[in-house]
Amino acid sequence: MIIPNIIRSCSMAAGNPLQKSWDLVPLQLKLVKPVPSDIVISRSQTPKNISILAKEIGLADNEVSQYGSKKAKIALSAIDRLRSRGNGAYVVVCGITPTPLGEGKSTTLLGLVQALAAHCQRNAIACMRQPSQGPTFGIKGGAAGGGYAQVIPMEDFNLHLTGDIHAVTAANNLLAAQLDTRMFHEATQRDKPLYERLVPLIKGERKFSKIQLRRLQRLCIEKTDPDSLTDEEISQFARLDINPETIMWDRVVDVNDRYLREIMVGLSPTEKGFYRRAHFAISVASEIMAVLALANNLDDMKQRLGRMVVAFNCRGGPITADDLGVTGALAVLLRDALEPNLMQSIEGTPVLVHAGPFANIAHGCSSIVADELALKLVGKEGFVCTEAGFGSDIGMEKFCNIKCRTSGLRPNAMVLVATVRALKMHGGGPPVTPGAPLNKQYTEENLDLIKKGLPNLEQHISNGQKFGMPVIVAINCFSTDSEAEHEMVREAAVKAGAVDAVVCSHWSKGGSGCLNLADAVIRACENSENFHLLYEDDMPLLDKLYTVAQNMYGAGRVELTPEAQKTLEKLTDAGFGALPVCMSKTQLSLTGDAKIKGAPKDFTLTVQNLYVSAGAGFVVAMCGEISKMPGLPTRPCIYDIDLNTETGEIEGLF
Amino acid sequence: MIIPNIIRSCSMAAGNPLQKSWDLVPLQLKLVKPVPSDIVISRSQTPKNISILAKEIGLADNEVSQYGSKKAKIALSAIDRLRSRGNGAYVVVCGITPTPLGEGKSTTLLGLVQALAAHCQRNAIACMRQPSQGPTFGIKGGAAGGGYAQVIPMEDFNLHLTGDIHAVTAANNLLAAQLDTRMFHEATQRDKPLYERLVPLIKGERKFSKIQLRRLQRLCIEKTDPDSLTDEEISQFARLDINPETIMWDRVVDVNDRYLREIMVGLSPTEKGFYRRAHFAISVASEIMAVLALANNLDDMKQRLGRMVVAFNCRGGPITADDLGVTGALAVLLRDALEPNLMQSIEGTPVLVHAGPFANIAHGCSSIVADELALKLVGKEGFVCTEAGFGSDIGMEKFCNIKCRTSGLRPNAMVLVATVRALKMHGGGPPVTPGAPLNKQYTEENLDLIKKGLPNLEQHISNGQKFGMPVIVAINCFSTDSEAEHEMVREAAVKAGAVDAVVCSHWSKGGSGCLNLADAVIRACENSENFHLLYEDDMPLLDKLYTVAQNMYGAGRVELTPEAQKTLEKLTDAGFGALPVCMSKTQLSLTGDAKIKGAPKDFTLTVQNLYVSAGAGFVVAMCGEISKMPGLPTRPCIYDIDLNTETGEIEGLF
Repeated sequence: MIIPNIIRSCSMAAGNPLQKSWDLVPLQLKLVKPVPSDIVISRSQTPKNISILAKEIGLADNEVSQYGSKKAKIALSAIDRLRSRGNGAYVVVCGITPTPLGEGKSTTLLGLVQALAAHCQRNAIACMRQPSQGPTFGIKGGAAGGGYAQVIPMEDFNLHLTGDIHAVTAANNLLAAQLDTRMFHEATQRDKPLYERLVPLIKGERKFSKIQLRRLQRLCIEKTDPDSLTDEEISQFARLDINPETIMWDRVVDVNDRYLREIMVGLSPTEKGFYRRAHFAISVASEIMAVLALANNLDDMKQRLGRMVVAFNCRGGPITADDLGVTGALAVLLRDALEPNLMQSIEGTPVLVHAGPFANIAHGCSSIVADELALKLVGKEGFVCTEAGFGSDIGMEKFCNIKCRTSGLRPNAMVLVATVRALKMHGGGPPVTPGAPLNKQYTEENLDLIKKGLPNLEQHISNGQKFGMPVIVAINCFSTDSEAEHEMVREAAVKAGAVDAVVCSHWSKGGSGCLNLADAVIRACENSENFHLLYEDDMPLLDKLYTVAQNMYGAGRVELTPEAQKTLEKLTDAGFGALPVCMSKTQLSLTGDAKIKGAPKDFTLTVQNLYVSAGAGFVVAMCGEISKMPGLPTRPCIYDIDLNTETGEIEGLF
Repeated sequence: MIIPNIIRSCSMAAGNPLQKSWDLVPLQLKLVKPVPSDIVISRSQTPKNISILAKEIGLADNEVSQYGSKKAKIALSAIDRLRSRGNGAYVVVCGITPTPLGEGKSTTLLGLVQALAAHCQRNAIACMRQPSQGPTFGIKGGAAGGGYAQVIPMEDFNLHLTGDIHAVTAANNLLAAQLDTRMFHEATQRDKPLYERLVPLIKGERKFSKIQLRRLQRLCIEKTDPDSLTDEEISQFARLDINPETIMWDRVVDVNDRYLREIMVGLSPTEKGFYRRAHFAISVASEIMAVLALANNLDDMKQRLGRMVVAFNCRGGPITADDLGVTGALAVLLRDALEPNLMQSIEGTPVLVHAGPFANIAHGCSSIVADELALKLVGKEGFVCTEAGFGSDIGMEKFCNIKCRTSGLRPNAMVLVATVRALKMHGGGPPVTPGAPLNKQYTEENLDLIKKGLPNLEQHISNGQKFGMPVIVAINCFSTDSEAEHEMVREAAVKAGAVDAVVCSHWSKGGSGCLNLADAVIRACENSENFHLLYEDDMPLLDKLYTVAQNMYGAGRVELTPEAQKTLEKLTDAGFGALPVCMSKTQLSLTGDAKIKGAPKDFTLTVQNLYVSAGAGFVVAMCGEISKMPGLPTRPCIYDIDLNTETGEIEGLF
């Protein structure tokens, strides 16, 4: 055991890192039947000290900032150090159109990497989103996987983690405060005093700060001496002149707080009557979360933060975060948040958890920097499996058209998670409702329902193929499924063009329940280099909408409301036409209507309106109402959550 | 150097830890003149890896959770391990009535511990509050001290730290969301369906959760079978029946966001018209922050969280967090936050940074657990210096009457920080305004103004004596002070009963500028055991108000508005009469009026109203308007803050 270590450290010191397998010591599972609750399984395993895992996967000590012994932030300098190393295979895991219960995408992702890294001696890293903390206290289960395919400790994963979402919240709300306060100060001060406060006399001298000089440049005022501005230039500089009707920037909290969906702010007498309607969204809906996920590095993040459009001025021009002077402050708040978080699966294999943008109003994928880091760490022969939120029509499409377009990375294969339950629902089965018991059509064999549901599977397989990726269908098996049901799905998948379709039982067996999936993925990634985007940057926005709707959803046509039509023109004129589109559509249907199951063809998709997320770098097309703030139910799971103050252990969390 | 280490580890292993000095290796200072900016000084020093400092002060590896290499959380189990060790001397650092610029309390605290630990070979720890992040982006400077008496790295200290304030924010807002949501569900559901949702049928069975059983007990319903409740009991259990007019629970953000001071929530159509007026405060104003600071351990914290009163029901009874079912969830969110944070001074000596409750509506002191931990770590011959916010009339009084009453710890001495500048202001000098240049009366010798200002100093000296503590006056010297000015203050202090009065120049010289203060403190703590509280628990609330106002402020009488009178009776009837009082008064005057300087006698203090912080464990007496939400100025310091994306360094922060 000593010799390989020496060889490795020698070759690393020589700047020529080995591409071979890590010396990773997996954690053994003791499988119990029936499968206990997620938190019981999570507790039953003792995680490795995260610094040991970091060493095992080739990170240097100075690249690892431990946050306690079970999670660590990884410096982006590790990517630079490994720049010359080849990338591993890049696998995106997505799903068919899910039931409201979810079909086990995260669980399958974890089962797959556990199989690869703990059983197949491959370097493999799972890249996952950090979940919003809000729903943890509502009705949703955790997002750390489940059963014997989990990230541990699941309470760290689901709560706080290393504070990235808190940093996003802080940055988002600082910008919101500065926006309203600036409007207030402009409304209550004349040009001259306003200017003199913005560029104050300090020790007899007025000086523009760097960020103010940038604003002058945007205004085409080529002066650097504050005393040389004309009255008109002073007014131009000092007045952002924001049109309150156009404000697009919401405040956020990472709590399911329905009473904040729509509020009136500024009602204190100190605000002198300048109140306005405003909104809170849940933190992960902040554009800043999408920026964090799409930034290629620290400088790119800062540029994107500065570009974020928060409103328009009274002449219709965009007002950016940079105009409000906050670019540097936001970057400072988010500096540490841009470092990916290392955790481990229940089998002791590496997991990078980083960023968690909404999958409808944003692109629903974990960060680019985490994927880049992982691809270098696993090396040329390794595998990085990354998750894309919701069905392939949403998560995978955005993973490719937004995330990969931005990063330049090219995925090698797509794993499509399907369940018998979801296919039965698409075949006309009764509604599936969280909390309510499942109808027996879901718990007894019913080949007829599955057969009718197969077109949904076929659409999702086709979606992957449209990007030139080999598609592997992972049938996430439930104990109530029959073999005949699995066989029907398997056959249909292969017939529809999947390179493979395999039944997976990671939930009850961990990585050993996913060996066939691991094999299929390894095979699919050999010589898989045919990835291409669905559309080019220079395609007009309208055509981009058509291309996505027709290819990914099976829509016949796209209809824009007159408002959407107008906004489309305005955004194109303002120079945002070259951005990709981010469809904000229900995840529960291939159409815009959550109630419609299966895979309808030639329907009409209506785009209600559009707006730009200029920092993230996409134009959002709103296809129906999407709530950005969930609520708590009458009996939220907070009633079950407790802290054992003797042991410090958390109880009742899933 | 090897032998002492062996002796120590032997004796520690034998459960009999040595009381001798740590093997602490201080960091050397390279003093530069003129003194550079705080961030330049902070950057010029390379901090020790925090794990090394932790070892130096006798912490075991498993008691230290690193958060990167410069800060760490310390497990409370360390207090238990050291239970049998004697406590060090306990020194509280406070100030005279300050100018709006502050008189250097934190700086003096740091200078003192740097002198003790880096120059006098004493075990010494500074205990400090974590500052609110909001003002960092407004106008206030940092709270990490300044010059050569600082905590480093100051950007970690001032931003995020280990996420404790974020945890407080999350917990506070979860409770707020649950409060409004519960009111909504009660308003829109009849008794039976409401009850059936609160105690749902799961696999054919209804079961109360632990927290629901506690509510039943409080209602004196001695049943555990949900199906056995009568209709009336169901109604009693399911309806909190909150009177919206009585809601005391605000939402919080750690941002200076003036537009959130008063808002209307619930305006979305999904809330069906159940809107109401509400408020946001800055996070450190949350009662949860005070709970964090006053909890003796994890279990005590949970009990306090459950006791917090958020509103009253329509019959006038208190509604607690426990009634809302959130006690466990709040404790879970705050579990890690209860661990104190270890950082270091610029001379490499230990600093515990933990909790930062407001100093007016709360008690303005760092946490009890940090002080307890520090007192054990320094051992019997060591020193713990802890800060109390604002002047002695506020911070020190609450430190004694609230914090020490709760912890049972007894301080040995009080350091009173005074400046020539503040005394001149109290003597009738012109107003001191942040941002504006100082009047020359403050920068030239003016013995007359100082002389007239001395009564303020005398009142604060007397305040310490009232608690039986020896008072050491630390004159925080400015470069514009004259020797004659210092001498006048020194003489007056000793004449007024201070055991010593010394001039300190830590800002320009670090610990070496505070050696005389260190000496004075060491001497004062010898045989200093006369501490006593100002009043007993069983003194009626009204008498407590009188006692504090007369003894600490020099007031002649206390006047209660009719509303305050009524609330006082209500709170006494509700069983809160045995709690200490927390005076919410301006810090800028000994009176209730910020404009009145000096030390007036026999004035009337008016109490506008009172409310209970039942979890923190005090009754707040509002003497005048206190804003719980600061605003941003026209040109906040965000304009200067930037991130150097090449080096990752933060620029423009103070």
